[in-house]
Amino acid sequence: MQSTEEQTDPTIEPTMKELEDLLAHHSSEVLELRWDLHRNPCLSSDEQDSADRIERWLKERVHPTEILRNFGGTGLAAVFDSGKPGSNVIIRTEIDALPMDDTPELPHCSTRPGIAHKCGHDGHAAIVTAVSVLLEKYPLPAGKAILLYQPAEETGVGARAILADTRFPKLEASWAFGLHNVPGHPLGQILIKDGPFCPASEGMSIKIIGAPSHASEPQKGKNPARALSQMISSFCGLPSELGGLNSVGLVTPTSIHMGHNDFGISPGEAELCFTVRAENNRQLAILVNAMRERASLIGSAHGLQMEFVRHDPFPATVNTPEGVQILKQAFDRLGYEPEEIPVIFPWSEDFGEFLMRMPGAFFALGSGVDHPPLHSSEYDFPDQLIPKGALSLYTAARIAAGTERVHLSQEEY
Amino acid sequence: MQSTEEQTDPTIEPTMKELEDLLAHHSSEVLELRWDLHRNPCLSSDEQDSADRIERWLKERVHPTEILRNFGGTGLAAVFDSGKPGSNVIIRTEIDALPMDDTPELPHCSTRPGIAHKCGHDGHAAIVTAVSVLLEKYPLPAGKAILLYQPAEETGVGARAILADTRFPKLEASWAFGLHNVPGHPLGQILIKDGPFCPASEGMSIKIIGAPSHASEPQKGKNPARALSQMISSFCGLPSELGGLNSVGLVTPTSIHMGHNDFGISPGEAELCFTVRAENNRQLAILVNAMRERASLIGSAHGLQMEFVRHDPFPATVNTPEGVQILKQAFDRLGYEPEEIPVIFPWSEDFGEFLMRMPGAFFALGSGVDHPPLHSSEYDFPDQLIPKGALSLYTAARIAAGTERVHLSQEEY
Repeated sequence: MQSTEEQTDPTIEPTMKELEDLLAHHSSEVLELRWDLHRNPCLSSDEQDSADRIERWLKERVHPTEILRNFGGTGLAAVFDSGKPGSNVIIRTEIDALPMDDTPELPHCSTRPGIAHKCGHDGHAAIVTAVSVLLEKYPLPAGKAILLYQPAEETGVGARAILADTRFPKLEASWAFGLHNVPGHPLGQILIKDGPFCPASEGMSIKIIGAPSHASEPQKGKNPARALSQMISSFCGLPSELGGLNSVGLVTPTSIHMGHNDFGISPGEAELCFTVRAENNRQLAILVNAMRERASLIGSAHGLQMEFVRHDPFPATVNTPEGVQILKQAFDRLGYEPEEIPVIFPWSEDFGEFLMRMPGAFFALGSGVDHPPLHSSEYDFPDQLIPKGALSLYTAARIAAGTERVHLSQEEY
Repeated sequence: MQSTEEQTDPTIEPTMKELEDLLAHHSSEVLELRWDLHRNPCLSSDEQDSADRIERWLKERVHPTEILRNFGGTGLAAVFDSGKPGSNVIIRTEIDALPMDDTPELPHCSTRPGIAHKCGHDGHAAIVTAVSVLLEKYPLPAGKAILLYQPAEETGVGARAILADTRFPKLEASWAFGLHNVPGHPLGQILIKDGPFCPASEGMSIKIIGAPSHASEPQKGKNPARALSQMISSFCGLPSELGGLNSVGLVTPTSIHMGHNDFGISPGEAELCFTVRAENNRQLAILVNAMRERASLIGSAHGLQMEFVRHDPFPATVNTPEGVQILKQAFDRLGYEPEEIPVIFPWSEDFGEFLMRMPGAFFALGSGVDHPPLHSSEYDFPDQLIPKGALSLYTAARIAAGTERVHLSQEEY
């Protein structure tokens, strides 16, 4: 793209064909960014290099009003200000990769052993970057578009870090939109849902402290095995126990460790780890509190001490009605036919942090029915999704930017 | 001791005072051997160096008829043949140390990091070696005394290795006696018991194989946690379940491992380890078989595969009536007042392998009420026990050697 490229009259709605042609014209540059990020993946909270590559790409091709580096630690935001009053709209992507090896067969295989984009954040970043191309030629009619490259989504700390950055309030963001690709659904199928979209989740580790003894005289120590067994059995049943048919969430045991393979020792300590998920933050709190209470009672009954640690808390991602409405308008304008999904996705997503503070919505794009699952070693982002993702987010931003600002209290969720 | 020292008439019973004086005369040499073994400990099945030191000590001081090296792999036997018909009596000690660090304050502290005599086998070996001094001056009136320095007791393979050595049958052993020091009882207190003395025991590891999945969708895998929890709870209750008030043994969970502290993964494998103990070999087999059957049923119910591995099997140490009778005669002759203990000791001991094949008995010598426990880092063998242990075993051997050979079938236990 030439930096001299002319902007069009922002009050005139660009046609679908104009937008598609523009993306097609720049598709190889956008793909090259996707592959560049894939070849050079960064772990959560260590995304400076990816942010460098994105910033370089943007500066060479488009003219954001402002670029915020080290945003929320290692993130980046590119602001496209229409210069006219209106709402400011966050278009958010994650940029972190996973601590996994890549598939060596990929032409754009990771050059960093043990780090790979296996959740498609490279593709999401390419989609949001493609939006910059649209904004460059067809600026918003009002407000600002904030392309937000959020760090550390996988560890659940990135969205909170962005929100805690002292520069965040100055952006006066009113809306937030984002998407995720999802294997197991037809390629390009748009999936939307009112209300809860991804569950609230957190990890719980429970250290159980008893006392060791010789294995021949367990009565002289306090072996945590029975308490541990009662906790597992009690916790796994808690969602039904608390909710009946309307099961309250899900408890998954993720690790159990006691002893050191010495048949002569009755161990005195154990650690149990669980992930806990629920459709909303209140249900998660109910479930987590019930687990802690139950664990404490079981532990006391066995004369054991307990230590609880909370890990990787993710709030529920709950779409607001206004956000879903805007997405639907955008899809309608683009001629897309979204599918309304009846149940929430099982994985968590820290995009929910934004939706606790402003209206907006998150949607999913099918990656193909037989596409390898997210976080599997065979997974790679399907590049065909880029235009549809970019057009959807750009159009939603155009609509949202023209609305009046809506204020949500955090207590609403 | 001078090798020219005269032997006395073996048909004349030495007096208690003569025996005590003889031991007192050689006590510093015997103690030096105990400390030498302590300074230079050997792990199970690696006792060549300890056997070297013992052989050197014996050859410099006494005249065994025969010395068998590499007996049962890394053990040693010193045979003292009276040259007259009679029964051949094994006087057995262990010689292996433990994979632990020693207490640096000990004057005879281990010079080998991570290896230490923390079960008193150095002391037991000194006791049996002190018997050689008695045999040298006061030979048996009949039969042979076989001082057996058995390797690898801690791992439960040494006694079987001795019995499997092709030279063992040629010894035509008819009796076996041995002892163990036991902290928690008054120093020098002799503890005896008819029948079961130490339990049969073995380790069981159970690998449970399911299928991993993302922690958000455990229904797509097979998480072994619930099955594991049911096994622990079922197994720990089995001894009462099978035996009611006459509880059949003891099941101790020694390790439990599932997952790798990744909150995103619902693991597909787990490993459970237990030690199982019972008063006799039949009860142990009943308990172990019940555990396997129960585990298989629980595993099947959850669609899991199971793999069982048996570890460190020890038979019960069951004193024979004839063996206990001879010990009692010996203690009586020496003026010792043994205490009959009502319940078996909790630890296992592979001396039971000998008692499955010949009559004999095992007894315990108190190491002091407040003596640090066996296998604890503060433990050291109390040297004061050496004369009493040696006099007891020597006197029992004199009595047993004069008896007719008794034949036991292995099926008896």
